[in-house]
Amino acid sequence: MKNKGILIVVSGFSGAGKGTLMKRLVEEYDGYALSISATTRAPRPGEEDGREYFFLSEEEFEKRIADRALIEYATYCGNYYGTPRDYVEKELMQGHDVILEIEIQGAHKIKEQYPDALLLFVMPPSAEELHRRLSGRGTETKEVIDQRMRRAVQEAEGIEDYEYIVVNDDLETCVQTLHGIVTAAHHVPERNEEFIEKMRRELRGE
Amino acid sequence: MKNKGILIVVSGFSGAGKGTLMKRLVEEYDGYALSISATTRAPRPGEEDGREYFFLSEEEFEKRIADRALIEYATYCGNYYGTPRDYVEKELMQGHDVILEIEIQGAHKIKEQYPDALLLFVMPPSAEELHRRLSGRGTETKEVIDQRMRRAVQEAEGIEDYEYIVVNDDLETCVQTLHGIVTAAHHVPERNEEFIEKMRRELRGE
Repeated sequence: MKNKGILIVVSGFSGAGKGTLMKRLVEEYDGYALSISATTRAPRPGEEDGREYFFLSEEEFEKRIADRALIEYATYCGNYYGTPRDYVEKELMQGHDVILEIEIQGAHKIKEQYPDALLLFVMPPSAEELHRRLSGRGTETKEVIDQRMRRAVQEAEGIEDYEYIVVNDDLETCVQTLHGIVTAAHHVPERNEEFIEKMRRELRGE
Repeated sequence: MKNKGILIVVSGFSGAGKGTLMKRLVEEYDGYALSISATTRAPRPGEEDGREYFFLSEEEFEKRIADRALIEYATYCGNYYGTPRDYVEKELMQGHDVILEIEIQGAHKIKEQYPDALLLFVMPPSAEELHRRLSGRGTETKEVIDQRMRRAVQEAEGIEDYEYIVVNDDLETCVQTLHGIVTAAHHVPERNEEFIEKMRRELRGE
């Protein structure tokens, strides 16, 4: 019963553990593809074009905006970030469920263009745990951590815009829940009209 | 994130394998309870009151109808069959997901009273396979099988009234899919408002 893939939009507070979750989901189950963003920021050591990001010049990026070749884009710290439409659509057509990690404004833009997209919000089990995870990275200053906590307050206001919320407490349980949600989405009647019609014809003896 | 249980209504053609599926689901995963129907038909050898059915006299059954102690009821071959409200509500309050196997008219009645109920429709992979399963039981006459196949034609018209459809091809896969659908239903924001509000208060430092 697997036809066209599902576009899965994953949002959540910085520090909720989205990256690790998505990585585990793709490793553990078949049929998923992680969307790769385009960006104008410079590659960091070890990053490869077409793996972490598609690295583009500002001119190239702006041409893609003009060509509507990006589903959504935003600027962050003076750099462009966006989602290439061709990659996403190719994967969906091949029946893969494409995962997009993106913040809430981007999620809304995706939903406008892909009303069937599945919007998931990942949360830590508590604000305290969120703070612990952000501090535990050991790479961020107190200012950055405070800024992320304040941003979480804002982002929390939009949670009801998402169709599912998942609490990232135990990683394994959380990965299974995510896969359960995507599996469920494949089984709504609207995604299986062909099969239903075939069954009806068969039952009528046609 | 598990609060109140979910009422799960399972319908599907006779021969789709609903009974086996539900049995496996309850065996394999915690937190499920199979609803037990009340009936006025006589117990068959080996059947126990409160296990297969609650066996009631016609007077007792009609008193329950008058007391609105049944969520829904119907007559079939001259006997009453119905779903006792107290058992279902007790299990839901204890956080169990209650499974009700019921046909389409009953499913509609349930949804009116429990708008949060999850409506699932189980199908065989093909009409041919349905016929094979009905014949394979070896207990039904050709007339009964033909009657069930004709009934399936009618029932198939109502499939879109269900929220999810599941094809019972491979039993294990199907049980996992069912559990995935129920898991997903536990993760919609409306079922987790308390948690979301708690998180918001914590993030604001309240």
